[in-house]
Order: sequence, then structure tokens, then C-alpha cells
Amino acid sequence: MPAEASPLSPEAFVFDAYGTLYDVYSVTARCESCWPGKGAPLAQLWRAKQLEYTWQRSLMQRYAPFSTVTREALAYACEALGLELSVAQMEGLMSEYLRLATYPDVTDSLSRLRTKHAILSNGSPDMLLPLVESSGLRFDAVISVDELKIFKPAPQVYELAAKKLKTEKSQIAFVSSNCWDALGAKSYGFSVYWINRGNAPVERLGFKPDRVLKSLDEILQ
Amino acid sequence: MPAEASPLSPEAFVFDAYGTLYDVYSVTARCESCWPGKGAPLAQLWRAKQLEYTWQRSLMQRYAPFSTVTREALAYACEALGLELSVAQMEGLMSEYLRLATYPDVTDSLSRLRTKHAILSNGSPDMLLPLVESSGLRFDAVISVDELKIFKPAPQVYELAAKKLKTEKSQIAFVSSNCWDALGAKSYGFSVYWINRGNAPVERLGFKPDRVLKSLDEILQ
Repeated sequence: MPAEASPLSPEAFVFDAYGTLYDVYSVTARCESCWPGKGAPLAQLWRAKQLEYTWQRSLMQRYAPFSTVTREALAYACEALGLELSVAQMEGLMSEYLRLATYPDVTDSLSRLRTKHAILSNGSPDMLLPLVESSGLRFDAVISVDELKIFKPAPQVYELAAKKLKTEKSQIAFVSSNCWDALGAKSYGFSVYWINRGNAPVERLGFKPDRVLKSLDEILQ
Repeated sequence: MPAEASPLSPEAFVFDAYGTLYDVYSVTARCESCWPGKGAPLAQLWRAKQLEYTWQRSLMQRYAPFSTVTREALAYACEALGLELSVAQMEGLMSEYLRLATYPDVTDSLSRLRTKHAILSNGSPDMLLPLVESSGLRFDAVISVDELKIFKPAPQVYELAAKKLKTEKSQIAFVSSNCWDALGAKSYGFSVYWINRGNAPVERLGFKPDRVLKSLDEILQ
């Protein structure tokens, strides 16, 4: 019988990237400089559509890389808000995704982490690898859903991380600030830490996170 | 070779229910009477979460009936907005879903439609059948995704309608006000009419609707 899942002493940590380590709303300033007064609503709608399109395309069985989905979400969001988007603005905003800010608790927490740790992200390699590189963070593996052509929270995505890390799923702790992502990982069989920086309610998807933390620091405690 | 898809003379019309025939925001008044000043934001968040949960549960392979998803979405939305939800309020609001208002253009348009027509809905039979009954609308078939245990826009859902109606997909016109639903149907192979009552942009999912209409009346023209 495999050992019981233990969120407190896992063999490996697997981190979500966008929204967990990297702040997707750090694009807001550039949005604001393009369209004064519209930075915050644009950044919010861009992110919301980006997520919706990952779910809808996965269900339609019409996967497109996250870079394509992110561009399409930006085009939609600008049109919905009545903002004209030039090619140069599109490229400028997309380039922001290659250098998103890390949250303040990330760099120190990860540098002190002695356990094997990896990223599991919706990001296609063309977006994800430059971002990780520019941030200076180090991982034992950077895993993209791109090779499966389906997005989170499909169970095969979480299974990919267990396979790549050659680690039993019960021995993996998954860390995400996106509650639906944490619960998708829980449904698959990981132990999960939900990083609830914004004091949001738990999503109602039939599962609960093993632990709810305010910041990444707490996973080391 | 099968005949070309013709959105203008289909053998059957298939209609989405929630948001297309039935106004999901007709619950707003009851939300407002429970929590004055919060009716509109509650109704909006309730609907947004209801949809998110259908996509996320489908991808997680953790289907639950639409009645369960709708209750869970309401519970989340109330907690997120800081509203206490009693059992009586939950039951009262859920009962509103059994008698949603039809949009003003629905009854007359459907009564004049001589072509075979059906509903294809995410709604589980416990919600959908009482709603159709109470509205007095008549259909040749009322089809729920519930027997497949997956929600729109999975292609097998649209295929279910073609099978039930014993009609080639190229001869079916699908009608939805939810653009992502219309595009899911297009991706599967139906001709699609997107009823764009709110003048929204087309969703960016790699497909376009065959026709964009302002109201249901126009499908008869």
C-alpha cells in the first residue's frame, strides 16, 4: 500500500506559475500607460478571458498554445472595453508576460526550499521559459501542459508532473494561488496548498485544499 | 457527399436554453429583495461562477448535475460578497430558476417556427423540465447534457443533439446567445446563429458564427 499523502513532508513541491509565483497583474502599469484610466479593468478582463479560453478550448478539443490564447484574450478585452489595439501595443503587452514580477514572498521562500521543486504551468514554452529565465528562479523541472495539448484542471496535466518527477502522486505537494487549480490537483491526488493572498472563499468544486496559506513563506514552516 | 451546411434552410433548429430563451438575470429581483443593493452584483457573480464550474468540473472529470453546480455557485457568490445565505433563501433563489422569464422575442418567434426545433441545455432534467413546462414553450425534444456527464462546449454534447434528432449535423442550425456555446457548436459542425442582444465582441476561439443576430425574430426572416 502506498504511503498516505502527507502535505507536511512531501518528496517534491510542484508550483503553479501565473498568479502563484508570477503576478499576472504586473501588466497593469503598461496597460495603464497605453490607455490611461483603463489599466486595471483591462488587466482584469484580459486575465479572466485568458482563463476562460483555456477551459473552453480544452473542452472543445481545440487546444492552442497559451501564447495564442493570451493574445486572443487581449484582443477580446480591448474590443470589449472599446480600446484600439495596435500591433505595437499587442507586442509590447505580450512582452510584459516574459518579465512578470514575482510576488514579494517568492524569491526568499524558494531559495530556502531544500526539497525538489518544479513548475507545472499552462504556459507554452515560448512564454514560460523566458519568464523563468528572466526571474532568476531555479527549478528542478519546468513542465508545460503544451505537450499534452490540454489545459488545467484536466487530470492528465497533473499526472504529467508526477511522471516527469518520477514521484508518486501521494508524495507531491502542489502549490497554487488559483483555487480551482489547487482543487484540480487535489481531485487528481496531490496534496495541495492553496495560497490565498486575497482572502477569497474556497471554490465549490467538491474538494477542499489540504492547507490554506496566506503566503509562500508558510510552506517552509 | 453530404449537402453543404445551410444556415438559412436547416432541417432542425437547436436552441440553447439559459441566456438564450430564458433570462438568467430574471433572478436579480429576488436577489435584490434578499439583499437590497446587492441584487445585480450577486446575480452576475452567480452566473459567472455557474459557468466556470461547468467548465472546470468537466475538465476535472468530476461532473455534477447543473442543479448542484448552480447551488454551489450561489453559495460561493454569497460568501464572496459577504452575504449570509439561509437555507430558505437558497431554496427560494433556486426555485426562481424553475420559472425564469423568457426574453421578449422568444414566444412569438418560436410559435411561428414551422421547422423541427429542440433545446440542448446544460440544465439537468430536475431544473430544465419544470422550466420548459412553466414557460409554455413547445419543443420536439428537450435534450440535457446530463446523460453524457459533461457540459458544453464538449463536442459530444452537440453530437448528442444530432443523434437525438436523427439529423445530419450539417443540416442543423444551432442558436445561442452565449458566444462560446455558439462557437463550440460551430467547431463540432453545426451552422450557428449567435444572438448578440448585448452588442458584445465575438469570442476569440478560432471560429466565427455563421450569422450574428440582434434578436430571435431574425431567424425567421
